[in-house]
Amino acid sequence: DSESSEEVDIPLPPPTSMPMEILDVDKKTPDAHVPRDPRLIRLTGVHPFNVEAPLSALFNEGFLTSPELFYVRNHGAVPEVKDEEIPDWEFSVEGLVERPLTLTLRQLVAEYEQITCPVTLVCAGNRRKEQNQVKKSKGFSWGPAGVSTALFTGVAMSELIKKARPRKKAKYVCMEGADELPKGFYGTSVKLNWVMDPNKGMMLSYKMNGEMLRPDHGKPLRAAIPGQIGGRSVKWLKKLIVTAAPSDNWYHINDNRVLPTMVSPEKSVTEPKWWMDERFAIYDLSTNSAVAYPAHEEQVCLVGGPDVYRAKGYAYGGGGRRSKRVELSLDKGRTWRLADIDYPEDRYRDAEQMLYGGRLDMSWRESCFCWCQWALGFPVTELADAKDIVVRAMDESMNVQPRDMYWNVLGMMNNPWYRVTISKEGEYLRFEHPTQPAMMPGGWMERVKKAGGNLTNGQWGEKRAGEEEKL
Amino acid sequence: DSESSEEVDIPLPPPTSMPMEILDVDKKTPDAHVPRDPRLIRLTGVHPFNVEAPLSALFNEGFLTSPELFYVRNHGAVPEVKDEEIPDWEFSVEGLVERPLTLTLRQLVAEYEQITCPVTLVCAGNRRKEQNQVKKSKGFSWGPAGVSTALFTGVAMSELIKKARPRKKAKYVCMEGADELPKGFYGTSVKLNWVMDPNKGMMLSYKMNGEMLRPDHGKPLRAAIPGQIGGRSVKWLKKLIVTAAPSDNWYHINDNRVLPTMVSPEKSVTEPKWWMDERFAIYDLSTNSAVAYPAHEEQVCLVGGPDVYRAKGYAYGGGGRRSKRVELSLDKGRTWRLADIDYPEDRYRDAEQMLYGGRLDMSWRESCFCWCQWALGFPVTELADAKDIVVRAMDESMNVQPRDMYWNVLGMMNNPWYRVTISKEGEYLRFEHPTQPAMMPGGWMERVKKAGGNLTNGQWGEKRAGEEEKL
Repeated sequence: DSESSEEVDIPLPPPTSMPMEILDVDKKTPDAHVPRDPRLIRLTGVHPFNVEAPLSALFNEGFLTSPELFYVRNHGAVPEVKDEEIPDWEFSVEGLVERPLTLTLRQLVAEYEQITCPVTLVCAGNRRKEQNQVKKSKGFSWGPAGVSTALFTGVAMSELIKKARPRKKAKYVCMEGADELPKGFYGTSVKLNWVMDPNKGMMLSYKMNGEMLRPDHGKPLRAAIPGQIGGRSVKWLKKLIVTAAPSDNWYHINDNRVLPTMVSPEKSVTEPKWWMDERFAIYDLSTNSAVAYPAHEEQVCLVGGPDVYRAKGYAYGGGGRRSKRVELSLDKGRTWRLADIDYPEDRYRDAEQMLYGGRLDMSWRESCFCWCQWALGFPVTELADAKDIVVRAMDESMNVQPRDMYWNVLGMMNNPWYRVTISKEGEYLRFEHPTQPAMMPGGWMERVKKAGGNLTNGQWGEKRAGEEEKL
Repeated sequence: DSESSEEVDIPLPPPTSMPMEILDVDKKTPDAHVPRDPRLIRLTGVHPFNVEAPLSALFNEGFLTSPELFYVRNHGAVPEVKDEEIPDWEFSVEGLVERPLTLTLRQLVAEYEQITCPVTLVCAGNRRKEQNQVKKSKGFSWGPAGVSTALFTGVAMSELIKKARPRKKAKYVCMEGADELPKGFYGTSVKLNWVMDPNKGMMLSYKMNGEMLRPDHGKPLRAAIPGQIGGRSVKWLKKLIVTAAPSDNWYHINDNRVLPTMVSPEKSVTEPKWWMDERFAIYDLSTNSAVAYPAHEEQVCLVGGPDVYRAKGYAYGGGGRRSKRVELSLDKGRTWRLADIDYPEDRYRDAEQMLYGGRLDMSWRESCFCWCQWALGFPVTELADAKDIVVRAMDESMNVQPRDMYWNVLGMMNNPWYRVTISKEGEYLRFEHPTQPAMMPGGWMERVKKAGGNLTNGQWGEKRAGEEEKL
């Protein structure tokens, strides 16, 4: 094994420029200590800070995302931690363990094996705006850029749990952050069995792309839970609590669930039993994909341009499952074509080396913790004859994205086929994505809805020839 | 821990009556030594023996299936092994290992820890008849009973592999059976990493429901690979071969793959590259479900009968993932209702005891290796107003069965919503399943097809009011 990182061609982070200035918009909020990138799209007004990058900006960075464009999901104010306080950041491992631990970040770095691993985090609300277009959910409007990838450096969570020695009845690991919220500190839990499973790769991390975590990403310490929804990767981590039951934290109960589709917003209030049913808590991500190019409102000239247009986008699976195929259709799913897939994550597998102070050691592992990029060329004449491009991914367990949306009251895990419409305007083709994030207008869903189309008719609200709309 | 099995209420096998007679139909085949149950439905003529039970008979047995109704997938003649030869059955662990082993079944029992575990096996072709109705695939016509569950007793596969000490480049475990076929012995492979993962539960087994394996199920020794397709659970097991690459056995390459949907039967012959792409090999099962009751051609009287009809069926997930919800719709997927789910597998989790000579030890494991049974009552008046019942399951990773069929050239992993049609005939409701297994006539797919309906129109071939069929 080598200590140098020169010999193997591994993907490294894109150029980063750490924001140094406090944006005016943040100056009157509790986050007035957090410098941010102005390109980020705010999804919940000014504060708390919940943002995604413009899809093209995210995609153009490539496999890894710079910390300044990495999506952020904050429930409240960002805890302020000065650089000089980082080494003394204290956290505990407690609960159903024989040897409770309290340790500092300094000890975490000095006394445990350090690892580095690329991980894609995805908000469970990614693509929620589409659900909100169908029927308002109890969640704010993510576009398709609630997904980002970084190299995380830290310690396997299992190392700490092992050291604390879980007792026999232990089944879960609860986590708690330092972000104090109206309903207490943010907290949630994961399965102990999965924490101890090396193939699941759960870790505690203090570095992202080789630099110390920035405030919005959990400075100085967070969990990084691959293959699961972002809501489990607790930021500003203070406690690991081993328990017999799942977390009873307010945010664990009332967030990050896919309630059954028949639970209306009204029922979700009058029938609290739905929230207490652990069956509906989300852990693994589900299979998903989106189109990055053509971008929303992109135009392609039919005259004098290239003959072939190369569509591009991303896909990811859940629970470490690889996206093994991505297919596109120009005829609403009647026929499909296979896209090329690039899996940059694989390029780390042969690289047993140190990176950012942690060991890259993925050769023995089958799991895929990261998104992939797909691409497929279409003759422009075929695009001109088509009404839309739809994409779907299938994971290694042959789970395929469905045509139908699973609407749910929290608007989570939205993963139907991603559809981009094509309209021919003079000598140009114009493309529309389903939505634009936040309250931004635009997208074919809004247009179809305004025209009185029923978005749930299995045809994206379009009427078929001669059809009388009966719904 | 107790050695008795009396204290915990665990599901035990249904009554069994071992077939003792050779059926006339088998007498002139190479399987003339194998007694069989005449109720089984033969899917490939008389020989080789590929069968499923009538769906009602399977479902009525409950959670566990008797060996005589357990589905069978044989590629050729059943190896003949006399009872007195069982203890001397020899098999090897070889390939990329430091210490190749050869051992007998006697040694396997005497020298290793014995475990017992309930496992559902599912043929990758389960429900293939529906695909064949849409377009003929290269596979024979399974109905929805290519799924069965038994208590398997044996040894964790990881124990043997550990003992043989895999070398550094080892990535796969190939298996080979004693069934000699036109293209060699049957063989396939699984991932070594998964073999070593206790949550995956792969085992070598010599007992099914407490009795020695019967000839059709691999007598005297087979693999039992939970959560994956049946084709990986090699019967009449002779060799485990640790390798750096997936199996190159003819049956591994040419079977048990979901080729992309655009690969036609013709292309699959002229473009052999599709078969060599390991991405398309199936390991985990995908989420699936079916209706058992109402049965095909069942009738429900609208006068004088009960007010509520209780529909019932099964569901399963892949890779150890639990089926967390099952939903039914009476309006073609516009609205859904949640079914009750019974997970008999959970009742073994608290039972740390010996069973059939093996230790039941599932308390620490999160995985679900078995099917579950669902049920939901419908007011009969509502059934009378509906045209069909559709069911879909969602697994713990929120993978939901899609509306659309993923047709593929081998007709594998068919898992769209399972649909039973309802027709009102006088004072009766009559139900039809999509198909009947093998060459048996019947089912709404056949009827719709004969009437000129297009089964791929997203509406099961039905025309919508006023719709001009354009395809």
